[in-house]
Amino acid sequence: MSETVQVELSERSYPIVIDAGVFSGSSIAPSTSLRAVIQRVEPLKHALVISDHQVLSTARTLANALEANGIRVSLCDVPSGERSKSIVELDRLWNWMLDEKADRKSVVFAVGGGVIGDLAGFVAASFARGLRFVQVPTSLLAMVDSSVGGKTGINLEKAKNIIGAFWQPQAVIIDTDQLATLPAREYFSGLAEVVKYGMIMDAAFMNRLEVLADKLLDRDADALREIIAHSCRCKAAVVKDDERETTGLRAILNYGHTFAHAIEATAGYGKLLHGEAVSIGMAMAGQLAVSLGMIDQQSITSQNNLLSELQLPIDHSQFDLAELWTAMQSDKKVELGRLGFILPTRIGEVKRVEGISLNDLSTALR
Amino acid sequence: MSETVQVELSERSYPIVIDAGVFSGSSIAPSTSLRAVIQRVEPLKHALVISDHQVLSTARTLANALEANGIRVSLCDVPSGERSKSIVELDRLWNWMLDEKADRKSVVFAVGGGVIGDLAGFVAASFARGLRFVQVPTSLLAMVDSSVGGKTGINLEKAKNIIGAFWQPQAVIIDTDQLATLPAREYFSGLAEVVKYGMIMDAAFMNRLEVLADKLLDRDADALREIIAHSCRCKAAVVKDDERETTGLRAILNYGHTFAHAIEATAGYGKLLHGEAVSIGMAMAGQLAVSLGMIDQQSITSQNNLLSELQLPIDHSQFDLAELWTAMQSDKKVELGRLGFILPTRIGEVKRVEGISLNDLSTALR
Repeated sequence: MSETVQVELSERSYPIVIDAGVFSGSSIAPSTSLRAVIQRVEPLKHALVISDHQVLSTARTLANALEANGIRVSLCDVPSGERSKSIVELDRLWNWMLDEKADRKSVVFAVGGGVIGDLAGFVAASFARGLRFVQVPTSLLAMVDSSVGGKTGINLEKAKNIIGAFWQPQAVIIDTDQLATLPAREYFSGLAEVVKYGMIMDAAFMNRLEVLADKLLDRDADALREIIAHSCRCKAAVVKDDERETTGLRAILNYGHTFAHAIEATAGYGKLLHGEAVSIGMAMAGQLAVSLGMIDQQSITSQNNLLSELQLPIDHSQFDLAELWTAMQSDKKVELGRLGFILPTRIGEVKRVEGISLNDLSTALR
Repeated sequence: MSETVQVELSERSYPIVIDAGVFSGSSIAPSTSLRAVIQRVEPLKHALVISDHQVLSTARTLANALEANGIRVSLCDVPSGERSKSIVELDRLWNWMLDEKADRKSVVFAVGGGVIGDLAGFVAASFARGLRFVQVPTSLLAMVDSSVGGKTGINLEKAKNIIGAFWQPQAVIIDTDQLATLPAREYFSGLAEVVKYGMIMDAAFMNRLEVLADKLLDRDADALREIIAHSCRCKAAVVKDDERETTGLRAILNYGHTFAHAIEATAGYGKLLHGEAVSIGMAMAGQLAVSLGMIDQQSITSQNNLLSELQLPIDHSQFDLAELWTAMQSDKKVELGRLGFILPTRIGEVKRVEGISLNDLSTALR
């Protein structure tokens, strides 16, 4: 059974197709879902498949399916990890595409997690002033977060995601079978963003996640399809009203993230996975909101219990608040305006609060 | 006296302001035109001025005027010439902007010819997923051609303009005084594109250019303002209906350019200026159209006489037709479809013709 979520962005609208078994088994005959995605990008004569090295077998299955449809395929793999979001890799891919005789009608397929989506998406945005591209996210985090919204880009040595473009894909195709082999920490890490959607905009979804928690621990395909589809729907609703991050609406997606970025910056990137830092960040933001009298303790305890049940960390005691505070001041999103926190007012609703002091943090969190 | 041409691209519309004396003299008090442009990009707290090394004094005048208005200014110069449209320069500018603490509200000012407009425009398009930018073209070619239409980008070693974005400026400000010191060949070269607009879409403009020819040789400010404004109006009309070069309409701007690109590729870049190659290319395209019975000889003789009067070359006899033919086959714009020539049917009208053979060329041009 497959499900399709439509991201509505006027002429840049696109479908996210969620299914199982898309890239498993022999795929001389592509699945209905994959065929639907291929149809979206017709006429398709030349596909540029850019793949994370770790999921090359998925990329090869995709390439075979495309070739079986008479499409010329160029395949390139990229080393796993954030370091690939670099100018060096960008330069290499641009020249590879030229060598492969890519033209304006070629279509880029990004197979991998957020790193590949960001990198290959920007490559697509910038080659020949913009190629069409298809996202094939293989991590849960990429499925529910980075593959929706059109943000693409690379890092400079001194700043993450500072170079890039808003560039929407033609389609996203998600195969929940990809999650079966994802390392446990990486899998659970993706669930943090799922819980986030419930907290910021959908109390009923929080209840549903509590019901589904056991199935999610087992990576049940139906449960996964349901929560991925709903997460994409949530993010799409936010992005629709603030495509280029100009109205401030998109800021609610940063719930837990001001803390998470500071945690990642001080703990050193790579020690905690992004979703783990977000989970701790949501627990901290929740506690801060309780301390400010914005929300009752019980709601935050519910949030934290769900996070814990989903094997996510919520304890911030190992971090020094003053150190986090300093890191927050140099957060890219903070520099642009005053430091604001996205804080919950009830389960399913958040608002942006400015004027928080280190003292407020200490009172809430020590 | 100043004139403003509005480029209509729905929410991406912008004005081109053409004036004299904008950047000459002491500009502690900026001219009305410059003030109008600054107002377009308010709130403006931080300006990133990226300047061709050769026109640094203009950039400094602009910087002083901005600073006098309380705006923080970062200024960077770029070596003159096509080689600056490189990944190396892109990387350098991105990091420079980061060091200068540019944020999403910073505005890029591109001061120079087409190279700077393309490079700084792409830098603006890609930093923080898109900064606003203002074009300050200082060459005639940039004023009448590359500053209108939103094409930005850089070269790879093996392909010109292959990396880039469509990114529209907030405003263009043109100071005709800049042309007073432009080297003669470069100045006349820009006039080739002006004649092109007359040939492809405006017979009355061709007549007007004949009337103004003497004044243009003298670089008369009023004549320049008039022809620059009208050229921008012509290009804007074409771009309006084909912003992202998808409908094929924009192809008429390539009149003379299929030949010109082949001439540039075989003569070696830099021997002939772009406008000189375009002038010879228009003479060749005109002769081909005559030979095919599409237009009368007299119209093409008029075109050629005007080009000659404006000190532009029209003689192709030094080029080997077979060699040009080979170069045309590998033209980037040809690879994407069949080789098509934009040929005149009368003064002020062109159409695209496919199926031309080397034999047709030889018959027309030997």
